[in-house]
Amino acid sequence: MKIVLLGAGNLAAHLSAALKNAGFEIAQIYNRSEKSARELADALHARCTTDAAQIDTDASLYLMCVSDDAIASVAGKMPPTDGLVVHTAGSVPMKILSDKFRNCGVWYPLQTFSKSRPVDFAEIPLFLEANSPENLQLLRQIAGKISKKVYEATSDERIRLHLAAVFGCNFVNCLYNVSAGIVGEAGFDFEILAPLILETARKAVASGDPGKVQTGPAVRNDTSVMQKHTELLSDRPDLPEIYTRLSKYISTSRFPDA
Amino acid sequence: MKIVLLGAGNLAAHLSAALKNAGFEIAQIYNRSEKSARELADALHARCTTDAAQIDTDASLYLMCVSDDAIASVAGKMPPTDGLVVHTAGSVPMKILSDKFRNCGVWYPLQTFSKSRPVDFAEIPLFLEANSPENLQLLRQIAGKISKKVYEATSDERIRLHLAAVFGCNFVNCLYNVSAGIVGEAGFDFEILAPLILETARKAVASGDPGKVQTGPAVRNDTSVMQKHTELLSDRPDLPEIYTRLSKYISTSRFPDA
Repeated sequence: MKIVLLGAGNLAAHLSAALKNAGFEIAQIYNRSEKSARELADALHARCTTDAAQIDTDASLYLMCVSDDAIASVAGKMPPTDGLVVHTAGSVPMKILSDKFRNCGVWYPLQTFSKSRPVDFAEIPLFLEANSPENLQLLRQIAGKISKKVYEATSDERIRLHLAAVFGCNFVNCLYNVSAGIVGEAGFDFEILAPLILETARKAVASGDPGKVQTGPAVRNDTSVMQKHTELLSDRPDLPEIYTRLSKYISTSRFPDA
Repeated sequence: MKIVLLGAGNLAAHLSAALKNAGFEIAQIYNRSEKSARELADALHARCTTDAAQIDTDASLYLMCVSDDAIASVAGKMPPTDGLVVHTAGSVPMKILSDKFRNCGVWYPLQTFSKSRPVDFAEIPLFLEANSPENLQLLRQIAGKISKKVYEATSDERIRLHLAAVFGCNFVNCLYNVSAGIVGEAGFDFEILAPLILETARKAVASGDPGKVQTGPAVRNDTSVMQKHTELLSDRPDLPEIYTRLSKYISTSRFPDA
């Protein structure tokens, strides 16, 4: 099966490495900038191009690993093809591809990717969508070779998954950053928070339901501690409001003492 | 050295087990309820009592592992002693003990404890405070036997550490719970979020600075995705506001693109 990769960023690098490990061959890489296209192509023994008109038209699968904003423009520049063209974005509907391509779909990995951190693709949930049962079947076959966790999700379900990821990853990291700032002001390094951060994540995952393992002043309705905390934040923009909103959410949610 | 433990909850169980492993002996356990006192006393081969008047007066160290609210009342009921009396609460100043006890201090472990989850005390940062250099030295000696990460922190620094823990643990878990609710509504199990949650925590810890690894629509200022997300939340109480506040915090903080 001939595969063309569009994009050469973190996701493109990790996904293509996983495909190669599973025995697939990437024939060609298209990327706007030559340098990263060349580096990834060398690693994969693939050809590369920065000219969309030069993209092979006879591949079976076109994997778009470009930023959300770039999907429409890359799709617009691609030559016509009967191959299956899929993007990898959580919040972009499949229909962005269906006007132009007869065979299209989506392959959404629910994970955060960084250049320098290895990932175990076998454990990454992949959410697939396609414009026909045959195309879905093809995506399932390929996905099943690199991940143990393959699901089907509509465009509407996928944007909800992406929204959940914003809370469970992006906003969580933002709170880590708030914590880091507070311990820094108290004269300590961020690393003192590492055991707490890791245990909180592991505990929630092991619980199967983070609502069951909620702790802290808000779930105990310990108003005197919450009062002291918001006073400490009073000279910081946004943080008193964030503290109060999240505390209110905890105390009025479906936790036992609500 | 004779140690008396006050309380028989999660922290009492984990801390006393770590002390026992390090060669210390718990002579006696005091707890309001007999059942948990008895269970823990049996595990530690210690005596136990539910009558504060029966607390031994000749111990070298009294470790209060009771809830924040109970510290004052347990201290009030304890018989006078020359031993070193310490509490373990993040947001309670040392002075709650200094009126009554000549030798007092605080021993604050920055971690979340659950009955059913093992903890590696060697990796848990312990923050110590004492009302004299000699008492601090005694706490340092004991703490150094069970943890590799022993620090000194004043009552003011400690409440800031506790505030940081509320953001990095309690509020993070609240966001996990929001995520769980969203994937549940989309028809998926919470477990699909596990790889993302664990990787987000590990990546932040490995980075040494979570601000450097912030990702997502807010840091990219991707207003169209943020708009779609807030529309999906529009019928949920509090969540649109939480989404907007956290996004604003991310986009106006010290991240590169702000």
